[in-house]
Amino acid sequence: MTTAEIITIGTEIMAGQIVDSNAQHISKMLTEHGIHVLFQTSVGDDEKLLKSALRIASDRVKLIITTGGLGPTVNDITREAVSDFFCIPLRSDKESQLRLQRYFANRHTNRKNEYRRQCLIPEGTVVLHNDNGTATGFAVLHGEKEIVCLPGVPGEMHSMLNKYLEIYAQQNKAEKRCSFTRNLHTFGISERTVEDAVKDCRGYTGQMKTITLVHNGIVTINMYATAPEGKKAVKILDRTEQALRKKLGHTIFGSGDDTLEYAVSVLLNKNNKTIAVAESCTGGLVSDKLTNISGISKFFLEGVVAYSNKAKVDVLGVPEKLILKYGAVSSPVVKAMAEGIKKKALADIGVGITGIAGPTGATTGKPVGLVYIAVVNTGRVRVKKCRFRGSRIDVKNFSANTALNMIRLTLLNVI
Amino acid sequence: MTTAEIITIGTEIMAGQIVDSNAQHISKMLTEHGIHVLFQTSVGDDEKLLKSALRIASDRVKLIITTGGLGPTVNDITREAVSDFFCIPLRSDKESQLRLQRYFANRHTNRKNEYRRQCLIPEGTVVLHNDNGTATGFAVLHGEKEIVCLPGVPGEMHSMLNKYLEIYAQQNKAEKRCSFTRNLHTFGISERTVEDAVKDCRGYTGQMKTITLVHNGIVTINMYATAPEGKKAVKILDRTEQALRKKLGHTIFGSGDDTLEYAVSVLLNKNNKTIAVAESCTGGLVSDKLTNISGISKFFLEGVVAYSNKAKVDVLGVPEKLILKYGAVSSPVVKAMAEGIKKKALADIGVGITGIAGPTGATTGKPVGLVYIAVVNTGRVRVKKCRFRGSRIDVKNFSANTALNMIRLTLLNVI
Repeated sequence: MTTAEIITIGTEIMAGQIVDSNAQHISKMLTEHGIHVLFQTSVGDDEKLLKSALRIASDRVKLIITTGGLGPTVNDITREAVSDFFCIPLRSDKESQLRLQRYFANRHTNRKNEYRRQCLIPEGTVVLHNDNGTATGFAVLHGEKEIVCLPGVPGEMHSMLNKYLEIYAQQNKAEKRCSFTRNLHTFGISERTVEDAVKDCRGYTGQMKTITLVHNGIVTINMYATAPEGKKAVKILDRTEQALRKKLGHTIFGSGDDTLEYAVSVLLNKNNKTIAVAESCTGGLVSDKLTNISGISKFFLEGVVAYSNKAKVDVLGVPEKLILKYGAVSSPVVKAMAEGIKKKALADIGVGITGIAGPTGATTGKPVGLVYIAVVNTGRVRVKKCRFRGSRIDVKNFSANTALNMIRLTLLNVI
Repeated sequence: MTTAEIITIGTEIMAGQIVDSNAQHISKMLTEHGIHVLFQTSVGDDEKLLKSALRIASDRVKLIITTGGLGPTVNDITREAVSDFFCIPLRSDKESQLRLQRYFANRHTNRKNEYRRQCLIPEGTVVLHNDNGTATGFAVLHGEKEIVCLPGVPGEMHSMLNKYLEIYAQQNKAEKRCSFTRNLHTFGISERTVEDAVKDCRGYTGQMKTITLVHNGIVTINMYATAPEGKKAVKILDRTEQALRKKLGHTIFGSGDDTLEYAVSVLLNKNNKTIAVAESCTGGLVSDKLTNISGISKFFLEGVVAYSNKAKVDVLGVPEKLILKYGAVSSPVVKAMAEGIKKKALADIGVGITGIAGPTGATTGKPVGLVYIAVVNTGRVRVKKCRFRGSRIDVKNFSANTALNMIRLTLLNVI
């Protein structure tokens, strides 16, 4: 199995100005291609430090992938560091020059000369062309080690990484490559319950590693199969998934990149139902999540963010006396919100959410984190009272996910 | 200056299942405390690899901070690795035991025994207690090197890092510590223009490094002062900031953790104005962003996600003939949306957004990424026609930020 290290380069990473999402993306892609990522290293725009990182990496892995430091400025030192480290001189790549000429043909700029440096690559290396920017990437095979240098801009890096992985896949025979990982996402049960279910499937999981992760109430099971043969690894994953699905049932809402809102959109489509959402404490987050799904406009009719009591009364038709009697954060009001938006938008499903996101707004008996959610579907109303912990943003996220899950379960007819 | 390396531990990081936000947070905090972070390293839950990472780190920096691997399971190997590496035996910390007893006193669980491992720390180390979970952290001083081990759960790690940094600050004299970084956020101008402005301030920036970053249309200028004395570094930053503010004027909307929505909330408060938002293609994102700000409920009256034409007509009062004549994505319709929501919510400011987020929905003359934004404030309407590139999520983000910036400029009376 090929071992790899990812080196991300940039002073802004070392100062904590940005989250290093490149390392995550590359790790994911390499893992999917059956490459074992042993280390991720980040280092600033400093040639000496980068060379020391290259030395350490080349001692401990076979494949090194770097991102960053391929820009046109003097702070971009990856080309020089790699050339120096492997003692391979830099030369200007003809094809990259032509590409840059075409790139600048339609642009008015007096900065063309600055970009010449970006055509420099170590001699005799595989060029990885950039469809989305000016930096040129390259892959150097040096003895048994391979080093691949990609730009740091994600939009440029992603497609260039894909190009390299295509080359990698061609170099390796098909049977050696297989999917070693799979994940399942659950909602509405505790991490403990998920872990117990995983333990019960131990018969199947002997040859694999399982890790659970929790994020905004979503518990994800990551499965890593360790079988040397592709077919066997897939079989282990298949059997484990089957056992887990049997055990965890409807709490599993998806796998891979699936989100709760995606699961909802699939069910709306399947059942041909329309939806409208009335939000208070989530402030539009449920609508935002749903409208991230392409094609949702067929089913998502309307969203209302009724932050003020006036909006709850005027827009959603919540009787004012209900608010006066029970308060805006209450079961009768959330029910009226869901019914109000359903009626108003002529939707099949109405959703209401009201709560106290905090940090202020708590009253006696109504603490920060208290949230009511209602889903009404063809006459039947489900109301859920929740108590979430954490920051304002945490409470918004937990509430939105809980609402999406209630919609999902309603469409599945299991609540 | 103290040099540091951050080691984050977790197989889920190496598989690319999660973004390593801990490294970013710690880097930021250390930089703010005048500590120079030279490397970030990530490694899986593997004792041998972790020990090799510790060896390399202790060769190249003075301070090592690790996160992760302090949980109760056998996969949590940080305690053992550190104990082994420095040849310091582990012992169970009494105070941590008491803390765990209190922690479990109010919880029904039969898993108490599993957590006993979490009280183990290397002998003679400084204990970093955890206010939000069961893991115990610790700081080991070994010769000239210091290693600090923190849990991987961000909510637990953050406060424990603060505890360590307090100890660090006490160890160092106050005059040695200073803020070395500052940033300014701009919107509405290109990275190129920002870079040129930075160049013009070169007289001030000779003693500092400047980096610009672009994210969802926001161009951020990061300034790193390199002066050895705190007062001098602050003076350089002050002078550069002053010069940049003079040059870039109202395009600068904030610094530090400021967001566009925060800038808007400050101006709404200052001008005592209320706002209501009618969104189509952004699907609630502007409302969501605004309601992330605590206390916004005083100014944010209502949001409507009018995805369907019916909702635009019924809810916002957009004349149907306008939609038929110009299409839903047009200047007259966005104007009517902003005016409609303003009138309906009795707000001082009305905002309308309509566009084609893609990837489908384009028509002749109306490509994906075409977005109209309108802001109406006391009778005056501003309409902006935009053309954004990128994915559906990109178009939503660019549109939302552009709308927030228009609200900001309207409140500043500069558009």
